[in-house]
Amino acid sequence: MQRVTVDLAARPYDIWIAPGLIGHLEQFIAPLAPTSIHVVTSTAVALLFADPVQRACERVAPTALCAIADGESAKSLQTVAQVIDALVQARADRGSVVVALGGGVLGDIAGFAASIFMRGVRVVQVPTTLLAQVDSAVGGKTGVNHPSSKNLIGTFHQPSVVVSDTSVLRSLPQRELSAGLAEVLKHGLLADHEYFERTVRDLPALLALDDEALAVAIARSCQIKARIVGSDEREGGERALLNLGHTFGHAIEALTGFGRWLHGEAVGCGLCLAGDLSARLGLIGTGEVERIAHAVSQARLPARIEGLSTQAAMQAMRGDKKAQAGRIRFVVLERIGRAILREAPDALVEATLGAAGYR
Amino acid sequence: MQRVTVDLAARPYDIWIAPGLIGHLEQFIAPLAPTSIHVVTSTAVALLFADPVQRACERVAPTALCAIADGESAKSLQTVAQVIDALVQARADRGSVVVALGGGVLGDIAGFAASIFMRGVRVVQVPTTLLAQVDSAVGGKTGVNHPSSKNLIGTFHQPSVVVSDTSVLRSLPQRELSAGLAEVLKHGLLADHEYFERTVRDLPALLALDDEALAVAIARSCQIKARIVGSDEREGGERALLNLGHTFGHAIEALTGFGRWLHGEAVGCGLCLAGDLSARLGLIGTGEVERIAHAVSQARLPARIEGLSTQAAMQAMRGDKKAQAGRIRFVVLERIGRAILREAPDALVEATLGAAGYR
Repeated sequence: MQRVTVDLAARPYDIWIAPGLIGHLEQFIAPLAPTSIHVVTSTAVALLFADPVQRACERVAPTALCAIADGESAKSLQTVAQVIDALVQARADRGSVVVALGGGVLGDIAGFAASIFMRGVRVVQVPTTLLAQVDSAVGGKTGVNHPSSKNLIGTFHQPSVVVSDTSVLRSLPQRELSAGLAEVLKHGLLADHEYFERTVRDLPALLALDDEALAVAIARSCQIKARIVGSDEREGGERALLNLGHTFGHAIEALTGFGRWLHGEAVGCGLCLAGDLSARLGLIGTGEVERIAHAVSQARLPARIEGLSTQAAMQAMRGDKKAQAGRIRFVVLERIGRAILREAPDALVEATLGAAGYR
Repeated sequence: MQRVTVDLAARPYDIWIAPGLIGHLEQFIAPLAPTSIHVVTSTAVALLFADPVQRACERVAPTALCAIADGESAKSLQTVAQVIDALVQARADRGSVVVALGGGVLGDIAGFAASIFMRGVRVVQVPTTLLAQVDSAVGGKTGVNHPSSKNLIGTFHQPSVVVSDTSVLRSLPQRELSAGLAEVLKHGLLADHEYFERTVRDLPALLALDDEALAVAIARSCQIKARIVGSDEREGGERALLNLGHTFGHAIEALTGFGRWLHGEAVGCGLCLAGDLSARLGLIGTGEVERIAHAVSQARLPARIEGLSTQAAMQAMRGDKKAQAGRIRFVVLERIGRAILREAPDALVEATLGAAGYR
């Protein structure tokens, strides 16, 4: 079993990684001494895992189940209200624990609901996608979408513990597995050259769901994210580096309608665009740009998404919540393994988009 | 001008108290260097104060106004969604500042919206009722009601600065002024005997809106609240003492329908009930119980609200979010000037309610 400790000033917490953990969730929840447990999950995930999770939780405290609709379109304030209604109905109190069982979207919704219910009850994240295991379950960001913008509404609410069971990933469609690998590649690119190279070598094993390779990648990705989040819990500085590929990626999601491309797929493409922009800024060479595009393709992710509008993309990026007063700061690569923040002239950004097939 | 510093580990902030401050809000907001300012207020307060406030804010940054409906019934997740829509429309970003201009309900709603917009933007509280000036604008609690329970949904989000203008209180109905005095009496009762006695002596001046008496009371109440909140930002321990009179008070509000009695009126009555329960627990004498009831009456608050159901009140208190697993902890008085937390046998609580005219 791999363990990563996220060292936050106020309250450190552990991430546990191994195959088969969801059947033994009680080990991780019992130390929290909850008055009651509220498993929040999606209807699709409930079919697969609600039974073993509920059985494990019942060993600790009375457990209620709340299943919400699947998918990005459920990521709204309305769904949060629905989760809160369910918590009220099941008589949750301040000593209760919410178990967020599902992918990144579910974790964001359930984490947000937990953070505003009675001004915050504890949440245990049990991510069931690779994307959530390597990324969204770590760091305490929660939230839902606004019609105008993704994740516009949310909080910072650190989980009490994260339990990542690698065997649940066998239920994932290949597309979602690849989407998770985009974030794994991102972590290497922004912070650890050696890890990036190792991931590229391990891609066949990762795509074949090798438990050992998965646990190593999840643990290393969590370490990188945990270190950065620990040094910058509320996103003043270094944490922004985790958005490598995301400014471009969010614009792709916005332009194509949220849900058409998976978040990780948009990020995969965004990594290539960020690499290209880095080269145009004179930071890295074209060989490295190609190395990134190759890795993204090997992970079975789209390195290019053609035919989008350059002007619409520019506008979406200016409206991104990381932009201040309409100025976009990009995360770019100084080299593979080291990201920095940089404002880029519009002309260079437009050239990057143009070279990638934007109109 | 009185100044009270709230000393929080993460981020201390100041409360400024004097007549005439809202016309000079720019002094307090300029240091925050906002990219834009978003005044959130209620339609009634907007009629009185939106113009001078907006003019002052415009001296610092582009300013937008968002007016929501008045009253407790507007304190819902729907209204928060409306405020967020207005922030989006006015192109608020992470560098923006929300100015919460209004009473306690408005401050709770606007503070909550600010806390979840882009995972938290800064808020300046400009309370326009005595209740908000002495209580709800200090301490960072935000939130809205759920049909099942008051303030069930919310966050902790500390303001960047609080500006309490005593001259705006001239617009308050007397009933609302008295409601604020309930919290002033509460602060003395729970933490400072001398301040309690001074308040009782000053009640005529306070009811006559004497600026000096008001500023002294607001400052001392804020000091007491700030000290307690500073030592216990997220309500693990000492902060619970601020709920003196509130367990009983919330039950009164729940049983009579939120809005029939003002929060401060319910608290005034709750202080008398808490005093009576303290005597039944053998902590204080009947002379002190009478002293409390006398002070509450002098503040033109109801010392008794008769005819409510004892069983319904017990049930409401067991469902309070401070209750854990159905057990109610009461804040009671060890003496005037010192509150403690204590569980009380149902029989004693029922005797207290019975003596106060509950059926």
